[in-house]
Amino acid sequence: MALTAAAKITRRVLSPAFPALFQHKTKNVLLFYSSVLVPIVMEAEAKPFVEHLKLKPVEDIFPPQTPFVAYSGSISDTKVTVVTMGKDSVYETGVDNVGTVPASLATFLAVEKMKGGKEPVDLVLNGGTCGGFKRMGGEIGDVFLTKGVANHDRRIGIPGFDKYGIGSLSSEIDPSAMAEALGYKTGVCTTGNSLDKTDTDDEYMKNNEASVKDMEAAAIAWVCKMNGLPYLGVKVITDIVDGGVPSHEEFMENLASAAKSLQSALPKVLNYVCENKDIAGEL
Amino acid sequence: MALTAAAKITRRVLSPAFPALFQHKTKNVLLFYSSVLVPIVMEAEAKPFVEHLKLKPVEDIFPPQTPFVAYSGSISDTKVTVVTMGKDSVYETGVDNVGTVPASLATFLAVEKMKGGKEPVDLVLNGGTCGGFKRMGGEIGDVFLTKGVANHDRRIGIPGFDKYGIGSLSSEIDPSAMAEALGYKTGVCTTGNSLDKTDTDDEYMKNNEASVKDMEAAAIAWVCKMNGLPYLGVKVITDIVDGGVPSHEEFMENLASAAKSLQSALPKVLNYVCENKDIAGEL
Repeated sequence: MALTAAAKITRRVLSPAFPALFQHKTKNVLLFYSSVLVPIVMEAEAKPFVEHLKLKPVEDIFPPQTPFVAYSGSISDTKVTVVTMGKDSVYETGVDNVGTVPASLATFLAVEKMKGGKEPVDLVLNGGTCGGFKRMGGEIGDVFLTKGVANHDRRIGIPGFDKYGIGSLSSEIDPSAMAEALGYKTGVCTTGNSLDKTDTDDEYMKNNEASVKDMEAAAIAWVCKMNGLPYLGVKVITDIVDGGVPSHEEFMENLASAAKSLQSALPKVLNYVCENKDIAGEL
Repeated sequence: MALTAAAKITRRVLSPAFPALFQHKTKNVLLFYSSVLVPIVMEAEAKPFVEHLKLKPVEDIFPPQTPFVAYSGSISDTKVTVVTMGKDSVYETGVDNVGTVPASLATFLAVEKMKGGKEPVDLVLNGGTCGGFKRMGGEIGDVFLTKGVANHDRRIGIPGFDKYGIGSLSSEIDPSAMAEALGYKTGVCTTGNSLDKTDTDDEYMKNNEASVKDMEAAAIAWVCKMNGLPYLGVKVITDIVDGGVPSHEEFMENLASAAKSLQSALPKVLNYVCENKDIAGEL
């Protein structure tokens, strides 16, 4: 953790050039994330990873009336804080709090709380399942690192509001080199609050040039951007959006294997970051 | 403000019976809101009301990185805090931060911040414009008080998640008597992140038995329910959802007159509450 302060200064100075630097995994690369927040919406998605890293529950991150859950620990020198959105009690369903509203609130609260502590968040790594597009080369089980995010269900036909609604954000981090090193794919993640899609959704998803579709990424990235934090999504495909099978059937069938895949992918991504971070002192 | 503590205790004790009590505007009625939070998404919607009540900007309610804006003052003995969602800088459009994600975050943060102060929020009164349904008797300029809220763009075809997605909440407050006294209408407000609607949206809006349609109510009500606070929406119709004119055209045409109508309606609703609150000591 000794590098934290130096890393922060360096990050501010180098910020504009950082995405380029990130692409080259050499000894000259500066990667310096020392406290990574990992929002993973569903408990079933998070559990294998949380157990694998032996993360411990943390009690004081969220106000007690919220359903959100936090776990923390470390990997190499990096502090890792996983947050899940918890279970619904507002509508008395007991299901996971999926969708943009809980995800953005939980992420904001965690970032804000940790800002006041010793190890403020410096990277948000959003792990989760997603739908993939056959037309973009996606297959079930593929791991995608996000190059950007956008919304496909916020249609507001007034100039200015239209752009706001789509809310397209390019990643501050270009994940191309990391994806190549780890055998993953890269693409834009399009977000909407429905598991299925309408034809209108599909038009917007095409316009967003999306490779994968989820229900939270764009909202979490909005919180990150507001807080000056880089967002990176690590998304595992559970279902094919433009295939013949209804999303919810494929999703349920592949959720467990996708969660196992996340368990493997998230540490690899974190290690990729950590490994490089160790040389931050060389600058 | 002397009644605040007594009111709080009374509210807890009487909570289950409260909606029934609220329906009868007599000297035996107990209404006791002493600190009302008024989320109004757009600056243009809020401005006439804020100026009319001579509310003053408040600086310390929101963390500085958020775009949200707060104003406060009082009407009779009731503290009134208006929050607007501010202007977008994340996507660099400068338009108002409409939709569920900013609205829920701003409401949560304001409620949480004021919880720690002398005058915690005890009612959330969400003012705003909306679309109305001809089929439900709605006309441009009508003021609706919400009997409940639901979502029409969160379709999740998995048992349990389907109910969560729709997120139907009945109002803790039955606004019937107040609507009758003030000449307003009542109905369910259905929420989605688009200004327009698809046929699929329309199916869900019908199933929600919606009288009006907005872009925030269900998300704000979710935050209220989580915090044990009553939610009441005061919504003025700017456009007819099932009419022949595109929503965005009617919306822009009628936004200013709807905001003036809100300026008149919100104090009436607040006065209705305040007037009855003064007899809280009689119990």
